[in-house]
Amino acid sequence: MREAYHEELASIGEALVDMANRVGSVLGRATSALLDADLQLADSVISAHSKVEDLQRDLDDRAVAVLARQQPVATDLRVVVTSLRMSADLERCAVLAQHVAKLARLRHPAQAVPQDLRRTILEMSQLAQRLMAQAADVLVTRDLDDARQMEQDDDRIDELHRSIFQHLMDDRWHHGVETAVDVTLLGRYYERFADHAVSVARRVVFLVTGEHADELAATHP
Amino acid sequence: MREAYHEELASIGEALVDMANRVGSVLGRATSALLDADLQLADSVISAHSKVEDLQRDLDDRAVAVLARQQPVATDLRVVVTSLRMSADLERCAVLAQHVAKLARLRHPAQAVPQDLRRTILEMSQLAQRLMAQAADVLVTRDLDDARQMEQDDDRIDELHRSIFQHLMDDRWHHGVETAVDVTLLGRYYERFADHAVSVARRVVFLVTGEHADELAATHP
Repeated sequence: MREAYHEELASIGEALVDMANRVGSVLGRATSALLDADLQLADSVISAHSKVEDLQRDLDDRAVAVLARQQPVATDLRVVVTSLRMSADLERCAVLAQHVAKLARLRHPAQAVPQDLRRTILEMSQLAQRLMAQAADVLVTRDLDDARQMEQDDDRIDELHRSIFQHLMDDRWHHGVETAVDVTLLGRYYERFADHAVSVARRVVFLVTGEHADELAATHP
Repeated sequence: MREAYHEELASIGEALVDMANRVGSVLGRATSALLDADLQLADSVISAHSKVEDLQRDLDDRAVAVLARQQPVATDLRVVVTSLRMSADLERCAVLAQHVAKLARLRHPAQAVPQDLRRTILEMSQLAQRLMAQAADVLVTRDLDDARQMEQDDDRIDELHRSIFQHLMDDRWHHGVETAVDVTLLGRYYERFADHAVSVARRVVFLVTGEHADELAATHP
């Protein structure tokens, strides 16, 4: 009975790592679809969402089943409750990747992102994917330094996000309003995606230390 | 013991209603601050967020305590788990209202919203507040028709959201890129707020029927 229980907990953890890897990869493909104006790839990202939804539903069902059957307390209870929150973070990331792909589809065959912002969007996407890969690692290792280090990559994302606004507000912006709107939304999608990845890591920190990671980060050199 | 337990469950339900009422009201004040370019009101909305965060943390602590102490099963377990999700929805709404207020502060003393979009923004805000008020009611009454009816108001929000984009893409748009960016983000904040309100109601439907409300809504006349 105890053994089956810890197996169930472990399998929930594995499902979270699986979801994190998957949504990271989906964001990468969504960004390719966006930057290459690739309709087929965009469509495949859009339809991939139901798979992530299935994973989430399955994970949540298992978490609730563990609560019902095993009635965990203390740390185990916190692990299960936190898993539910993480799966919600990850499902949201899949929706954000889907938004990126939908924008690629909407503008196809045109490019949604003008040349002078391609690098910024690409870097935001890469950082967001890296943060998600790191969140997946932190789920496995529970390495607090690794988790805290993510705050720096997230700062870089915020910086890139601000640089998009500066670029848009520049008098030399000549791509028109439609592109400004697209780029505004894209910036927000990547920023939110990264935020959810950091949130997953913060929840791990909270599990391990019982302290909220935003406070920890603030006192960290 | 049983009585104390049901009191705790009821008090979690009350806390959710309290949070829903509060975030609805915060969005109303944020919109006033935005449309009146009222810096003081904007600041009060921004600082009100910590109060909602406190409410959420308190609610989540109580929900986890119920799981640990009472080890509910079946319906009661689903109620507690769903409460955790709803409190996350509501906290997110408070953040979105805060974003609206921050934009008012950023543009002060100028108006962030041009005259020709004031009515649309006002209507989005009012609908979003109404949806949240309805979600609070549904939390109390568990009235499924009421919950399903919310989908229609949400459709209207989506329609207004699309009308903002059409307006921005119109050749006669003469407010420049900065305002286009602001209005794009505002549209998204209200749309997301409404979405979370609908999500709260859908979770109630799921609690009552065991079926996901999006599927129900699809087959509903």
